[in-house]
Amino acid sequence: MELIAERGYRRTSLAAVAERAGLTQQGLLHHFPTKELLLVAVLEARDRWDLASSAASAAGSWRTGTLAQLVDYNATRPGIVQTYTVLSADSVTEDHPARAFFESRFRAVREAMAAVLRAEFGETLPGGLTPERAAPLLVAVMDGLQLQWLLDPQDVDMPAAFRDFVALLGRGGD
Amino acid sequence: MELIAERGYRRTSLAAVAERAGLTQQGLLHHFPTKELLLVAVLEARDRWDLASSAASAAGSWRTGTLAQLVDYNATRPGIVQTYTVLSADSVTEDHPARAFFESRFRAVREAMAAVLRAEFGETLPGGLTPERAAPLLVAVMDGLQLQWLLDPQDVDMPAAFRDFVALLGRGGD
Repeated sequence: MELIAERGYRRTSLAAVAERAGLTQQGLLHHFPTKELLLVAVLEARDRWDLASSAASAAGSWRTGTLAQLVDYNATRPGIVQTYTVLSADSVTEDHPARAFFESRFRAVREAMAAVLRAEFGETLPGGLTPERAAPLLVAVMDGLQLQWLLDPQDVDMPAAFRDFVALLGRGGD
Repeated sequence: MELIAERGYRRTSLAAVAERAGLTQQGLLHHFPTKELLLVAVLEARDRWDLASSAASAAGSWRTGTLAQLVDYNATRPGIVQTYTVLSADSVTEDHPARAFFESRFRAVREAMAAVLRAEFGETLPGGLTPERAAPLLVAVMDGLQLQWLLDPQDVDMPAAFRDFVALLGRGGD
């Protein structure tokens, strides 16, 4: 994660990771046969740390405010956000080694987001949406804003835009 | 576009494109020095055709209904959507040849979306959002849903989810 933060996705080589970790390249390849598989492991570790480091998660009480704080945090770490954006999009190509990871991650994230929305807003959101129907929109907004922000951080205020979307969802159900 | 539709992004080689177009590889490379630049040209052509083929655009009257029809159409052409998703995300990496194209495309699309929202909903959207503040959310939803749909078309109904988002925006301003 240090190297990705310093150099970005493209310039982080397995050789550099091995050196920073004090391993031979062969030692690193034993654990992670390809760069893609190493990066998937980095993203899995980020997911775990983000969950564990949130005080709210200890109480099982994620709310949209917790999500907004996560977006704030992401705005301070473009390297890892870049890695996530590139690798998740790349995974849609044929036979990609990270495809299974992202398929199951997106399903799990949609389910988790539906639970957050239900806990905060109940069964009915604006427009008559259920939490399950709003969840893919919430995930899409997070991902789509990351892409726009990575390309143009001056023009796109990612944390403010995310809060705008949450406000749309929180206006009371029909 | 035919080859991308048949084989997907990864398996579309410059050699195959040259053969299909009846060019030598050198002839093709004269016009498009890299695969990335060829693909950018394909995406530019798609943008032009989508604009020109819409009856609404002739009258200068794009509405959110026109956008929903475009999402319907995209759901029938996963190859080109895959190409857009992979290449736009890839463009955020250092010194990527398509970065300038996507930066200016996203700015133009946000402006166009703000104009669509203003024409349809006026100056104030739900939550007190201006068209300019809602536009990046609209673009993010389109892009983010494409990624989820490409990974899991059984679980994600992209056209229905997009219409859900438009309905959220159309509930009348504060």
